[in-house]
Amino acid sequence: MTRYKLTIAYDGTKFHGFQRQPDMRTVQGVVENALSKMTKGTHVEVYGSGRTDAGVHAFGQVIHFDYPGDMPAENMLRAINSLMPLDVVVENSAIVDENFHARFGVKRKTYQYRVDLGHYTNPFKRFYTGHYQYPIDVDKIKVALKDLEGEHDFTSFAASGGVIENKVRTIYSAKVEYIESENELVFEFTGNGFLYNMVRILVATLLEIGNGRRDVHDFLRLFEVKDRQEARGTAPASGLYLKQVFYE
Amino acid sequence: MTRYKLTIAYDGTKFHGFQRQPDMRTVQGVVENALSKMTKGTHVEVYGSGRTDAGVHAFGQVIHFDYPGDMPAENMLRAINSLMPLDVVVENSAIVDENFHARFGVKRKTYQYRVDLGHYTNPFKRFYTGHYQYPIDVDKIKVALKDLEGEHDFTSFAASGGVIENKVRTIYSAKVEYIESENELVFEFTGNGFLYNMVRILVATLLEIGNGRRDVHDFLRLFEVKDRQEARGTAPASGLYLKQVFYE
Repeated sequence: MTRYKLTIAYDGTKFHGFQRQPDMRTVQGVVENALSKMTKGTHVEVYGSGRTDAGVHAFGQVIHFDYPGDMPAENMLRAINSLMPLDVVVENSAIVDENFHARFGVKRKTYQYRVDLGHYTNPFKRFYTGHYQYPIDVDKIKVALKDLEGEHDFTSFAASGGVIENKVRTIYSAKVEYIESENELVFEFTGNGFLYNMVRILVATLLEIGNGRRDVHDFLRLFEVKDRQEARGTAPASGLYLKQVFYE
Repeated sequence: MTRYKLTIAYDGTKFHGFQRQPDMRTVQGVVENALSKMTKGTHVEVYGSGRTDAGVHAFGQVIHFDYPGDMPAENMLRAINSLMPLDVVVENSAIVDENFHARFGVKRKTYQYRVDLGHYTNPFKRFYTGHYQYPIDVDKIKVALKDLEGEHDFTSFAASGGVIENKVRTIYSAKVEYIESENELVFEFTGNGFLYNMVRILVATLLEIGNGRRDVHDFLRLFEVKDRQEARGTAPASGLYLKQVFYE
């Protein structure tokens, strides 16, 4: 058995998320099917750095699996890519030792969130951005992002239904850039972990701050109240990208 | 009756082209359905500057129609947009006199063609670019593009089956730019008219020139031989955009 670590990109539009589900097209399912073809029928379990929801994209999702054989990493990359549908591509392949675990070894993750600011939905971006048509003051968002950095209790920003009790996470970096040529806001969040829907809830709140509907320092209040109802909105899946996963 | 000229953008991925066809989702059909709702059932015929094929996109397709009423142009824009699916947007609306005709009044058109040069197909670009994975010398393409400019017989670059006998067209401008951040070639062609599939055939030929598989000045020979078999390939619809239509 050889353990491979792969970095994969995918367009999440036509997937029911990352995680395997019966009778659903998922990223894990597509990769496991490819591996099953390569092994002529042996199931090879794929582990991802974490799930992504339906419609969420990845530039750099990381997976690992144990393959019954020892082909060079470059051959594994070519073999899997030749079996991938057009909405998944393996960007990188490496052989790692058996202590590497795509999920348990994660130290940091970076998510990107893209928001189109056009008056109407852009036909070319409907699956690849969120959309906000109201006035935005980017400087206000930049002030608010400073409040996000550091260790905080993100209870107000976790979708209900999660089983995780400890909702304290550390955000190392929270940035936004306005891309004039695209009329887009591009957010980037790097942290030691993210709760379910957390990035999408943060973005919805940040847009309300940018629009002046919330106080610039409302995050400080939201950390205190620990109430999901206070943060309200969730930005759509289409704007979210798992950009990079960092290990030791 | 009031004649409206609309500029519309659409993602062609999920359309069976521009032109109305029974039981097919087309751009013309979608706009005519919207107009039919606005008139409570009266058919309003939509005229486009020309057809686009299935999968071909538009940033600036121009249409006209005669509407039984005289609402301001801005209201027409808002009314139609409120009835459009997410893959079509009306960018501009104007009231024009009855001499304006979206098809017969065309003086020039600009098409863009985008080619992704990545080794593998980019999951996010599969519907929005062509793809060429072999080495390209952009300077060779630039030399070849000079040969395209001017008045030429484009018989070698017209898909068979067309009924148009005169295949002489004038290209006013033929350019390419390499966009490093996207690893894309972006072609732009402006001419007084384009034959069926002509841009896609030109691009396929240009890529072979850039790859060194054809002489840099092969266009001069192809103009002479007037033989579609000599130009061979057709770049995929997904990379083609009707960018702008010019009138008097």
